[in-house]
Amino acid sequence: MVNFNDIRDAHERIQNYIHRTPVMTNQTINDLAGAHIYFKCENFQKIGAFKARGGLNAVLQLTEEQLAKGVTTHSSGNHAQAIAYAARQVGTKAYIVMPRTAPQVKKDAVRGYGAEVIECEPTLEAREEGVREIMERIGAELVHPFDDNRVIAGQATAAKELMEEMSQPLQTIMAPVGGGGLLSGTALSTHFLSPETEVIAGEPEGAADAILSFQSGQIEKAPYINTIADGLLTNLSERTLSIIQRHVTAILTVSDPEIIAAMRLVWERMKIVIEPSAAVPLAALLKNKEQFAGQRVGIIITGGNVDLGKLPF
Amino acid sequence: MVNFNDIRDAHERIQNYIHRTPVMTNQTINDLAGAHIYFKCENFQKIGAFKARGGLNAVLQLTEEQLAKGVTTHSSGNHAQAIAYAARQVGTKAYIVMPRTAPQVKKDAVRGYGAEVIECEPTLEAREEGVREIMERIGAELVHPFDDNRVIAGQATAAKELMEEMSQPLQTIMAPVGGGGLLSGTALSTHFLSPETEVIAGEPEGAADAILSFQSGQIEKAPYINTIADGLLTNLSERTLSIIQRHVTAILTVSDPEIIAAMRLVWERMKIVIEPSAAVPLAALLKNKEQFAGQRVGIIITGGNVDLGKLPF
Repeated sequence: MVNFNDIRDAHERIQNYIHRTPVMTNQTINDLAGAHIYFKCENFQKIGAFKARGGLNAVLQLTEEQLAKGVTTHSSGNHAQAIAYAARQVGTKAYIVMPRTAPQVKKDAVRGYGAEVIECEPTLEAREEGVREIMERIGAELVHPFDDNRVIAGQATAAKELMEEMSQPLQTIMAPVGGGGLLSGTALSTHFLSPETEVIAGEPEGAADAILSFQSGQIEKAPYINTIADGLLTNLSERTLSIIQRHVTAILTVSDPEIIAAMRLVWERMKIVIEPSAAVPLAALLKNKEQFAGQRVGIIITGGNVDLGKLPF
Repeated sequence: MVNFNDIRDAHERIQNYIHRTPVMTNQTINDLAGAHIYFKCENFQKIGAFKARGGLNAVLQLTEEQLAKGVTTHSSGNHAQAIAYAARQVGTKAYIVMPRTAPQVKKDAVRGYGAEVIECEPTLEAREEGVREIMERIGAELVHPFDDNRVIAGQATAAKELMEEMSQPLQTIMAPVGGGGLLSGTALSTHFLSPETEVIAGEPEGAADAILSFQSGQIEKAPYINTIADGLLTNLSERTLSIIQRHVTAILTVSDPEIIAAMRLVWERMKIVIEPSAAVPLAALLKNKEQFAGQRVGIIITGGNVDLGKLPF
């Protein structure tokens, strides 16, 4: 179980490798929302997303022996870049299993950090099999995108930084939920540092597994997968679900039009580039304004890696 | 003539009404450019552009009598919003003459600050006539977008802030040139605060009047107008040309594809939204890398007001 020392140690361990990202506010969005929102801008983080934190915290704990063999993971998104980036920092090799259908630009970005890309069929089974094969053949250490205490403790440092910067405590802190690594890390940091603060997640209607799992207490699948928030497609694990059930108050779902409107609002008013997944918590807040009226709300802006050639507006 | 006291006074006058915008750097862009670039991010300024500075510096100097009558200007862009915003801060009325063909969203933004929009035909003559009519009928004070010492002194404060934040002096500072308000303000701040620093402007090939005027020493028109950098279409005035001739080293022109590529690079790598005009200096630097090799270069990112429904990528 991740405790406060793990999070504090993670923060010390990674701090020379990450940006202390800014906390931004915007008067127009506050007026619109009827709340005081503090955006923790992880779109300005190394590799353009908070995932650098968890990846680094895991890779920086590898033993000499493990470093000699390298690390592996499967991901078509920000975690792939995070592991590739972290591996380069410590001078080890990263083997990233990616679906052959992943955009060329993402494969190139991972290779750009010096990692080896292993292509596989675009199924979860093929991805897991690809990683297993690398682990057996090369002995590389797996760093799972979220089902890993080192990763959760790393992701927890974003909320830690946000809360450390607040002169008055937040009433609510919000994060999106996919596999639950960021959400459980955020919930743990909040539990340890600001226990009065409520933790509320945003989830796309088109990948609504976490809300079902939260209700039933066991890992559920989404009824269907169809959303622009491509960072939030995975299911929870037992590990993340148990933390979320203990420390998260609610999961609010939003539609793709609501996600796109919130994303556009941030681009237009705050002049920052955020990815669709990052807009999910703001969309959830704007959809449920009365619930947050007058509150100080922290929102983790998870990342800014968007294909500018395929914008929804 | 604007002197250093005017710029220092402008800065003190406006500082409670503006953001001290961040100076950002980006490793990938530095590697690409072969230089150390310090971006002064006026896209995060009030109204989304540096123009808030000049507008405020003018409006904050109005007498009681002038405040009773209001202010006027013609603009379809950021200066319109700047004057509307400044007028609201001091509780006076703004009358903004805008071409009837200006996008509805821009008219709405100006009205959103409480200003009155007076529509006119989309010609420079009709715009000037519209302002003249307001001045005669209402007695409102004209705040010209750039041919005004108060405005130039206000725009000069962006470069002043940038230079104050540098621990080592810049070798070059860059700004785009349209009417020359920002460029002449930047050149004056640099002349007073860091006289060793060269001032270099970027100009679109599709609105290349300033480079001609700079060469001939008199106000020239562009051979043709056709550029995405819609904030840079106007000609210099005698006032701005004379400052630019004295304190600017060179004007470099860039094509629209170069502007768009630089804009996209900033969006993708820095995760910030900048308008096409703001990308012109970076485009000029990337086109002339050898000239800036190894230098510390400051770039004024002028603004971030873009129609997201009409992106060039």
